[in-house]
Amino acid sequence: MFEQLIRQAVNNIKDYTPGKNPSQPGVVKLASNENPFGPSPLALAAIAKEAKNLHIYPDQKSLALRAALAKQLNLHEDNVIIGNGSDEIMQLAAATFLKPGEEVLIPGHTFSLYETFTHLFDGQPVVVDLKDKEQDLAAMAKAITQKTKLIFLCNPHNPTGTMISAANLASFLTSVPENVLVILDEAYVEFADAKDFPNTLALVKELPNVLVLRTFSKYFGLAGLRVGYGLSSTELVKYMFRVKPPFNVNRLAQAGALAALEDKTFLEQTYKNNLKGRDYLFTELDKLGLEYKKTQANFVFIKVKQPADELFLQLMKQGVIVRPLTSFGLPEAIRVSIGTKEQNKKFIQALALQKAQAAG
Amino acid sequence: MFEQLIRQAVNNIKDYTPGKNPSQPGVVKLASNENPFGPSPLALAAIAKEAKNLHIYPDQKSLALRAALAKQLNLHEDNVIIGNGSDEIMQLAAATFLKPGEEVLIPGHTFSLYETFTHLFDGQPVVVDLKDKEQDLAAMAKAITQKTKLIFLCNPHNPTGTMISAANLASFLTSVPENVLVILDEAYVEFADAKDFPNTLALVKELPNVLVLRTFSKYFGLAGLRVGYGLSSTELVKYMFRVKPPFNVNRLAQAGALAALEDKTFLEQTYKNNLKGRDYLFTELDKLGLEYKKTQANFVFIKVKQPADELFLQLMKQGVIVRPLTSFGLPEAIRVSIGTKEQNKKFIQALALQKAQAAG
Repeated sequence: MFEQLIRQAVNNIKDYTPGKNPSQPGVVKLASNENPFGPSPLALAAIAKEAKNLHIYPDQKSLALRAALAKQLNLHEDNVIIGNGSDEIMQLAAATFLKPGEEVLIPGHTFSLYETFTHLFDGQPVVVDLKDKEQDLAAMAKAITQKTKLIFLCNPHNPTGTMISAANLASFLTSVPENVLVILDEAYVEFADAKDFPNTLALVKELPNVLVLRTFSKYFGLAGLRVGYGLSSTELVKYMFRVKPPFNVNRLAQAGALAALEDKTFLEQTYKNNLKGRDYLFTELDKLGLEYKKTQANFVFIKVKQPADELFLQLMKQGVIVRPLTSFGLPEAIRVSIGTKEQNKKFIQALALQKAQAAG
Repeated sequence: MFEQLIRQAVNNIKDYTPGKNPSQPGVVKLASNENPFGPSPLALAAIAKEAKNLHIYPDQKSLALRAALAKQLNLHEDNVIIGNGSDEIMQLAAATFLKPGEEVLIPGHTFSLYETFTHLFDGQPVVVDLKDKEQDLAAMAKAITQKTKLIFLCNPHNPTGTMISAANLASFLTSVPENVLVILDEAYVEFADAKDFPNTLALVKELPNVLVLRTFSKYFGLAGLRVGYGLSSTELVKYMFRVKPPFNVNRLAQAGALAALEDKTFLEQTYKNNLKGRDYLFTELDKLGLEYKKTQANFVFIKVKQPADELFLQLMKQGVIVRPLTSFGLPEAIRVSIGTKEQNKKFIQALALQKAQAAG
């Protein structure tokens, strides 16, 4: 009976497809690029300490966390805004800037929420296809029109793991008018080790229309806590603050994230494990003759030459959950998170067994 | 430079004025209607247990919490939606239903976020003034036009503590067309003890256009955790789910709220203390000759015959933080949360001292 009452946006928004969670113990989840070592121990300690204050509303400005991030990143706290996950910063950017009918450039086969929040504020998504599974900045520059308001880039790119180099990004940005906002989603930036990976903190200082998004969900092991942040010019941040709900980030999220920032041992372990796991997976995938993308993130994109949904089910029977990329529009590819040494081995064994069975 | 780029909504939204937090120990905060006994102990235990899973994304549907609420309230889990505070449910309702230019009826001098979310989705707030500090349902019924889409009611009313009776609400609802959504904010419902307070759970079963909002912030002592919920028809809930960001409620919030629901000892203590504190405050305010409203909530609305901002500062000097209602458009009134016995006494002493000084 309410069909006529809802906004058009409600019908335009597609359901989000999450990674599957294990239904029984012993199953390895490599589907959501979560930290295989669990949450940051310093975050857990801070949460335990903060819990006694849970009857009190949180700081609506997340001041302590913003100050700590600003200090670490050599920015001002007024360049920083905290969200209930970096998802919320995307939503705030759309809520602040996107007028009905304005166009939003979005890479093909990417994180689905860019399109969701575009629809939520009646924007027009313009999908610019990938080129060899990489974001095609030349095509994106050509796609800019008078109606373009936002451009989403994802670096490293989810789900392919590919990167936009510093030179390519700089060149692209010269073609973006200053009245177009570029949102650089860097959810996986801490795992990138390429020398020509862009330093976007410098860009934030130079270009007021660049908004960098980062998260505590991956590197810091806090996906379940929902904390992300945006870095941009003070003017842009100031406007986004006006549409931010007052108590969007809860006390434990603020306290946990603040502590995780300083968790050097955990973060170093996370980083090193990821590089080692990446090398291992590349070697084993080569042996199996499977095509994959060199990744700058904590996951690997693999072409599987069969329906990914089918492979997903087969691997799950062997206790490994990966992400079939059907919901990303890539029905013959999977994304597998880089896990611990044991988890990676279990994945490769399951994959090899499945390949042998298919061949035999 | 971005002034031309932002949506009109950004300029329409007013800053939220929160209650002030104590800057030094020993100061009593009675400004935000938080639970004076701290967080629910069972919630704290559940949070401590759940923290080890914080590297894993939360359940995007908050299934366990919805099922527990449904069971307790004798509804179906598809009648329940969980938000990052009940604020978020208000926002989801506007995002789902409010089309540009549609009217939203809002009581005068009320919780400011009703108007904020109306602006966020380009709705037109129509403020219906209070009558003797109570919501004026007759005037509200008259204010309904062809363009009316949402009606916010707050019961008990924040900041006056007054209530809409079951009979008055039922009568009002007969005058609301079925294509208008009535949002009943019951943030304080658990403190209400009036026999004619409405049973809105029955209404949710009868009227598909009624959305009831409740929160874990007050009675359950979890304001810092950010959990609220909406109760409505399965159809309305289904549409709101479409615009809900996937991971809006974090793991600790889901686990803590679930446990708090069962914390009978804590909840009983909270309820009884509130009634006792209410009686005490009424008696003492009578002695001081101050006018106040009979409250159904965990706070008392007091007319102070002087600028509330001034009184707020004077009381703060004596270690008591109250809420001056200037930001509610009531510059000569304060709202004071009902605290523990000792906190209430400290407030009354501070108020009496200030009154004596003013007189002398």
